Amino acid sequence: MNNSRIEHDFLGERILPDTAYYGIQTLRALENFSITGIPINTEPLFVQALAFVKKGAALANRDLGVLEPTIAEAIAAACDRVAAGEFNNQFLTDMIQGGAGTSVNMNANEVIANVALEIMGHAKGEYQYCHPNNHVNCSQSTNDAYPTAFRIALNNKLVGYRETLGNLADAFAHKGDEFQNVLKMGRTQLQDAVPMSMGDEFRAFATNLREELLRIDDSRSLINEINMGATAIGTRVNSPDGYPELVTDYLRTITGLNLSLAGDLFEATYDTGAYVQLSGVLKRTAVKLSKICNDLRLLSSGPRCGFNEINLPPLQPGSSIMPGKVNPVVPEVVNQTAFYVIGADLTVTMAAEGGQLQLNVMEPVISFALFTSISYMTNACRTLNEKCVVGITANVAHAEALVRNSIGIVTQLNPVIGYEASAEIAKEALKTGKSVHDIAVTERQLLTQDKWDEIFTFENLIRPVFIQ
Amino acid sequence: MNNSRIEHDFLGERILPDTAYYGIQTLRALENFSITGIPINTEPLFVQALAFVKKGAALANRDLGVLEPTIAEAIAAACDRVAAGEFNNQFLTDMIQGGAGTSVNMNANEVIANVALEIMGHAKGEYQYCHPNNHVNCSQSTNDAYPTAFRIALNNKLVGYRETLGNLADAFAHKGDEFQNVLKMGRTQLQDAVPMSMGDEFRAFATNLREELLRIDDSRSLINEINMGATAIGTRVNSPDGYPELVTDYLRTITGLNLSLAGDLFEATYDTGAYVQLSGVLKRTAVKLSKICNDLRLLSSGPRCGFNEINLPPLQPGSSIMPGKVNPVVPEVVNQTAFYVIGADLTVTMAAEGGQLQLNVMEPVISFALFTSISYMTNACRTLNEKCVVGITANVAHAEALVRNSIGIVTQLNPVIGYEASAEIAKEALKTGKSVHDIAVTERQLLTQDKWDEIFTFENLIRPVFIQ
Amino acid sequence: MNNSRIEHDFLGERILPDTAYYGIQTLRALENFSITGIPINTEPLFVQALAFVKKGAALANRDLGVLEPTIAEAIAAACDRVAAGEFNNQFLTDMIQGGAGTSVNMNANEVIANVALEIMGHAKGEYQYCHPNNHVNCSQSTNDAYPTAFRIALNNKLVGYRETLGNLADAFAHKGDEFQNVLKMGRTQLQDAVPMSMGDEFRAFATNLREELLRIDDSRSLINEINMGATAIGTRVNSPDGYPELVTDYLRTITGLNLSLAGDLFEATYDTGAYVQLSGVLKRTAVKLSKICNDLRLLSSGPRCGFNEINLPPLQPGSSIMPGKVNPVVPEVVNQTAFYVIGADLTVTMAAEGGQLQLNVMEPVISFALFTSISYMTNACRTLNEKCVVGITANVAHAEALVRNSIGIVTQLNPVIGYEASAEIAKEALKTGKSVHDIAVTERQLLTQDKWDEIFTFENLIRPVFIQ
Amino acid sequence: MNNSRIEHDFLGERILPDTAYYGIQTLRALENFSITGIPINTEPLFVQALAFVKKGAALANRDLGVLEPTIAEAIAAACDRVAAGEFNNQFLTDMIQGGAGTSVNMNANEVIANVALEIMGHAKGEYQYCHPNNHVNCSQSTNDAYPTAFRIALNNKLVGYRETLGNLADAFAHKGDEFQNVLKMGRTQLQDAVPMSMGDEFRAFATNLREELLRIDDSRSLINEINMGATAIGTRVNSPDGYPELVTDYLRTITGLNLSLAGDLFEATYDTGAYVQLSGVLKRTAVKLSKICNDLRLLSSGPRCGFNEINLPPLQPGSSIMPGKVNPVVPEVVNQTAFYVIGADLTVTMAAEGGQLQLNVMEPVISFALFTSISYMTNACRTLNEKCVVGITANVAHAEALVRNSIGIVTQLNPVIGYEASAEIAKEALKTGKSVHDIAVTERQLLTQDKWDEIFTFENLIRPVFIQ
Repeated sequence: MNNSRIEHDFLGERILPDTAYYGIQTLRALENFSITGIPINTEPLFVQALAFVKKGAALANRDLGVLEPTIAEAIAAACDRVAAGEFNNQFLTDMIQGGAGTSVNMNANEVIANVALEIMGHAKGEYQYCHPNNHVNCSQSTNDAYPTAFRIALNNKLVGYRETLGNLADAFAHKGDEFQNVLKMGRTQLQDAVPMSMGDEFRAFATNLREELLRIDDSRSLINEINMGATAIGTRVNSPDGYPELVTDYLRTITGLNLSLAGDLFEATYDTGAYVQLSGVLKRTAVKLSKICNDLRLLSSGPRCGFNEINLPPLQPGSSIMPGKVNPVVPEVVNQTAFYVIGADLTVTMAAEGGQLQLNVMEPVISFALFTSISYMTNACRTLNEKCVVGITANVAHAEALVRNSIGIVTQLNPVIGYEASAEIAKEALKTGKSVHDIAVTERQLLTQDKWDEIFTFENLIRPVFIQ
Repeated sequence: MNNSRIEHDFLGERILPDTAYYGIQTLRALENFSITGIPINTEPLFVQALAFVKKGAALANRDLGVLEPTIAEAIAAACDRVAAGEFNNQFLTDMIQGGAGTSVNMNANEVIANVALEIMGHAKGEYQYCHPNNHVNCSQSTNDAYPTAFRIALNNKLVGYRETLGNLADAFAHKGDEFQNVLKMGRTQLQDAVPMSMGDEFRAFATNLREELLRIDDSRSLINEINMGATAIGTRVNSPDGYPELVTDYLRTITGLNLSLAGDLFEATYDTGAYVQLSGVLKRTAVKLSKICNDLRLLSSGPRCGFNEINLPPLQPGSSIMPGKVNPVVPEVVNQTAFYVIGADLTVTMAAEGGQLQLNVMEPVISFALFTSISYMTNACRTLNEKCVVGITANVAHAEALVRNSIGIVTQLNPVIGYEASAEIAKEALKTGKSVHDIAVTERQLLTQDKWDEIFTFENLIRPVFIQ
Repeated sequence: MNNSRIEHDFLGERILPDTAYYGIQTLRALENFSITGIPINTEPLFVQALAFVKKGAALANRDLGVLEPTIAEAIAAACDRVAAGEFNNQFLTDMIQGGAGTSVNMNANEVIANVALEIMGHAKGEYQYCHPNNHVNCSQSTNDAYPTAFRIALNNKLVGYRETLGNLADAFAHKGDEFQNVLKMGRTQLQDAVPMSMGDEFRAFATNLREELLRIDDSRSLINEINMGATAIGTRVNSPDGYPELVTDYLRTITGLNLSLAGDLFEATYDTGAYVQLSGVLKRTAVKLSKICNDLRLLSSGPRCGFNEINLPPLQPGSSIMPGKVNPVVPEVVNQTAFYVIGADLTVTMAAEGGQLQLNVMEPVISFALFTSISYMTNACRTLNEKCVVGITANVAHAEALVRNSIGIVTQLNPVIGYEASAEIAKEALKTGKSVHDIAVTERQLLTQDKWDEIFTFENLIRPVFIQ
Repeated sequence: MNNSRIEHDFLGERILPDTAYYGIQTLRALENFSITGIPINTEPLFVQALAFVKKGAALANRDLGVLEPTIAEAIAAACDRVAAGEFNNQFLTDMIQGGAGTSVNMNANEVIANVALEIMGHAKGEYQYCHPNNHVNCSQSTNDAYPTAFRIALNNKLVGYRETLGNLADAFAHKGDEFQNVLKMGRTQLQDAVPMSMGDEFRAFATNLREELLRIDDSRSLINEINMGATAIGTRVNSPDGYPELVTDYLRTITGLNLSLAGDLFEATYDTGAYVQLSGVLKRTAVKLSKICNDLRLLSSGPRCGFNEINLPPLQPGSSIMPGKVNPVVPEVVNQTAFYVIGADLTVTMAAEGGQLQLNVMEPVISFALFTSISYMTNACRTLNEKCVVGITANVAHAEALVRNSIGIVTQLNPVIGYEASAEIAKEALKTGKSVHDIAVTERQLLTQDKWDEIFTFENLIRPVFIQ
């Protein structure tokens, strides 16, 4: 057969098209795994991180004398091209595979070997000059190379997510400032509580999300711990003395990340705690985003039969049958994204629990879940910010009218007329529909109009001074 | 030592107080397992079901000649007393234990043996006359006796739950009839949609929950499949010929349940599918109850700054600081119960997944989760019915005023004036605050007052006739 | 601008490329929603089902005189072409959107309107002749059309899944027959229990999965209930008399499915119970598959330091560092798929719980989760069958040697020598490493060699006759 | 009526038994909420923390002149007695309630008021001298007092849990040292991988769990942020100037905890992020414990037909039918506890997501879930340590024999004879059953016996030096 080559492994031979930079083990993986139909190159940062790892290992192996400099440098040059995205179309392994990442690692080993071979002037498949296992994978096992690449990719992916989430928090903060002078009813348990500034409500959204930035930073510090040199199970079998530290140094330089070598390589090789922690952080943010979107939908409910305190920007006709209806479509899509992420956290949890003995074989589905969740969350935060938050307007007059007409303002009378008298007024107002003012000042004369005016200034409603 | 006896098993000897009907293996279980602090007698139906199983086995063993009639009948008599609850205080094993239920099974074997011994005129511990393993557990293993008792208890527990849930559905249906003539705004995506009768809204709650009764019936039919005679793993080792069918017959009679013998005893001995299915049904009902309670809380939001279409009965002051505040405390506690049940479903899921080979050793936590969920759901349904639904009242005038003042009614003009003209009216109404009527009839004269009146009758708002 | 057209909705105007069959509302959706990057045409059955719904509605509208026959028939003809997949590339809306499916419904309405326009000899966008809302969506709302299409697509998708799962169960059954004469140790709690036939073990897997086929059938019957004619919230506003029944009839014919009209259209419009139930069934099967794969991995553990009772077909080198290592990669990928599906069930649960009042706006993420789960499960079942189960072989001699050398066989002596004597033998065997035979027959002479031989025949080990 | 008193609130009057220190609002709570049947005094630390909060508030109120010194000091004295546990039997509110903790807060207010009344020489119920709302709850709302008490209780509960978990980690570390010289096969994907020391395996368990101690510390620092002075929703309505800081100071002193005042009281009043984070940490530890217990069960599988590398201490007969069987009951109960905790984390997640606007009303079920999870985890860690880990023994000879007989040791030949030659040996060994030594040294003479001996020393097997 023309335009093809034959490769072999210990299970036999297979024909590869000449155009393929990947080799026989990738081919087997393509045949064996077709669950999601989503290839690993959907995450270019993962492909890049695999190249980073292979480059770091090649240079360390060269320095320690276990890899010839010409081969090591060809591998490093190949890794640079792979990291730049030039061969992304060769990374086709399905996102979920058996084998604990071996197929992904071999996909990288094979592509890099063949690129290196071409760099050295050889043909693809002439592995005697640069072998996927013996050279590209030198001093490595899937069990250290794969999780290290995964962690580097995660860390880099978190950078963009963190920025997008921070921007969303800022947008809420800006709205908070814009709405500082909007008086509105605060609600607890969906019941009218006491008045507040809408500015404080929106700034609280910002506070709520900004706390997440710190949690992401926590996650990144856990994710930064790598296990290069552990090889198969942590005994460092087949890796030269000094290699773990040296390759970690190289990777710090190559990636610019604050990577550190795990203290217990046995534990580090099977532990998925950092993923569970990161997934938990994503879940926590999802929970908060969902709560905030629930609030935005409640506050904009109406326009005539709901709370109607704010308006979300109209983005599309809301109904195929109801004319003029506009729906809070962006908060809705963010809620749904949150539910996805919460579900994915369960996937991570079960995969972490399912690990056994010296390795967690379920890591690929963890990587699928985490990559997807970070992508979706990033998209959701950007959408919420750009398509919704920046365009929110307040129905100032309506929001204030609700307060003035409410029973909840009676709380502010407690220190002046006592809890029981206040409760009596509230009861009467509820029964008759009268206003608190009319009952308290006009009917019962429990305080003067002057005192009333002193208590119910805008300032005193949103930041009450204690008046007895 | 006075007032005590010594028992032994193959691990050694232990002293038991003379008052204890349980024996050495129960004692070991009490020492080994103290996780929840909740003893199995918290579920009297479980204790009862264990006695049912032991009685059925004793009678079948007698009939098949493997148990002497006097012993078998003493055991049966002891089982009757245990089933009546007389010895509930002897069933102290913690709800969660290791050993796949062996401790629970032995707790039953030991108590029943000692009760039978006393019935036969012997002292507790004189197991040569009636032995927990050789006689009470004759032809059984924990692996068939325990799940069979569990299934009988579940089935009986579901009877009370089903009735309570049915009563709740009925209460909603009655409210639906009561509210038939209350006109209100229907809402989709929290935005005003089109008018409807509040009666239809409450009857839909009833429909929603009544579907669950059928799902419970499905569950019960799966739960009814038992594996008596499988003994250890399904080979029927150490059980006499004809025993599985005979003991199943006895158990049908004793329990009054439509029990059937599993066709594949190997599979039946480890399968937890019926529990996963039942847990899923409980979860589904929890999801529905939570949605309904969310609706009740939304519809009663206010009293002045919310939807305020209905009033829930006031049960307790709602705030330690805000006078007159009353909260929807019952829907709130039902929401929380639902979250508990949804969490417990995950516990069941993981326990089911964690089974290995010929047995699922995680069954005790499944039983804990299911018993608790059914109890809590039963309590929640009763509370929601008695403390809330029966006392709900409608704010008839307010609900109708919202409709009359809404923009959403414009949908009803589509067939008469077209979607685009309707959309124009909606837009104008939203911008100016004017009513649909004023814009459509007075300003734009798109239809006559007569036509308007024809379209906007109460009947036509809640059950629109197609008018072109 | 050439090669383009202008469309408008009540929010304004937008330019569409002339090649686009979709219109302004789809364009807005593409701009508003980019969370997953996965378009709805990833599920061709969903596009097809949308076309089915639109065709059924057009024909019913024609019969009832609310749609001119020429328009209705052009719509029906357009639907046939869409259903055939000719315009799949026009269905680009992201799988997760806000708006409760409005964007998907409008995507279908717009594409079908433009195809119908061309069929009638008009240009795209000449909606006066066939309008997405007025004609294609006639007598419908997103709130009935979308869930109906979703249910039809689900049902059709379940057909393929059910078949694949059934084939997997059959494969296990065939293996069960093949392994009928393989004697092996049964294990409970990972401890040696009593002997069994490997055939019974594999047939139990088949039984376990075949039960799932019945649960799928249950799901399909719930999914078959549709709410056409409910329009916006169940009041049937803007649909002609007799329409719900007629369109349901048409859809039964068009789809060949046993669809039925919901009895309570208010409830049916917001209820997601059928999805929760289906998701629960998928989860249950995932739990079972995961348990089975755990067993396959345990039974094939080794080759020298594990159970090593069976061999899975070697599919790819198992390690980049350990020569000759072969891993159970297919069970591993199925475990991971199961974890994904269990996570997706949580997504469905939360989305179902998040519905409010007259509609569940979270339905798109439910559709995403269910479509994905069914696809992945189908792929996993096929892979497990074809790449693993059919090629499993038994290590007959090793499996039998384990039995003969085990202590667990002592259970079979209970009826002959009693539980306590048996326990003594077991204890001695454990302490000394001697065989049960040597202790029982040779040393202690508790039974003769003849009796031993009678008890420990192959037949009596796998299907013990009760011997006293 | 004798021996009783009448109390009233704004909903009416109720009779209380004279012995009751709680009052009318607690009575209503007892009537309204009976879901779990588990009263809040099941958590004495919670009752204590409520007393701490009330004492701190009383002293701050006194200092700021809003509470008369005699009343404040009587309250403080009452709080001391409550904190000491003297009135635990008066805290009977069900663990799950509606009302966002109002019932719990009022339970505390009422009991403390009545104890203070008696201290001041008054009768119970003479609230004019010390009122539950006006005095005990002065400057507070449920919405700050309840979460503050909850956080204090959590923090104190975590102290005991952390210590128990640390002890468990230490026990594993000690076993690691004990097993340092036990050679065993490392396994990845349940397949034989490369040799290791059993000491490294057990020390890795210690490392794995010790990381959790740091995560608990993270949680405690988040939990330490309180919102005293926020009152109803964060506006500080009805609290005097300077109060939030002062009461926080007092609480730091009273509790000895490093409490801090939240920077954004609006956000802090509704945010449940700290609970979600803590629940996630508990879940992560549960996942790790479950993995470790899975390993312990695998490693002790057998005794004859499994891995059989270690022995767990026998605690109880493992079967009611199989003589001599002993099961890994403690790891099993820990697995089940982990599943419970993972389920409870979902409960917390859903409750957190269900919060709306200015308050999260679902906090009681969060407190129930977290208190329960910490209790169960503490019990599980103690049990695993005391009943299992300390008594584990190694089957030294068997474990080493498995290694010597394995194929996995061939990896160590890679640097000497190359990956491909090693793979050939592995293949041959698998096919023929021969040993690696026989094929490599005797048959193929790929290395000398001396070289073999150099490579396969104990030291070089567990900590391989790189030998080329």
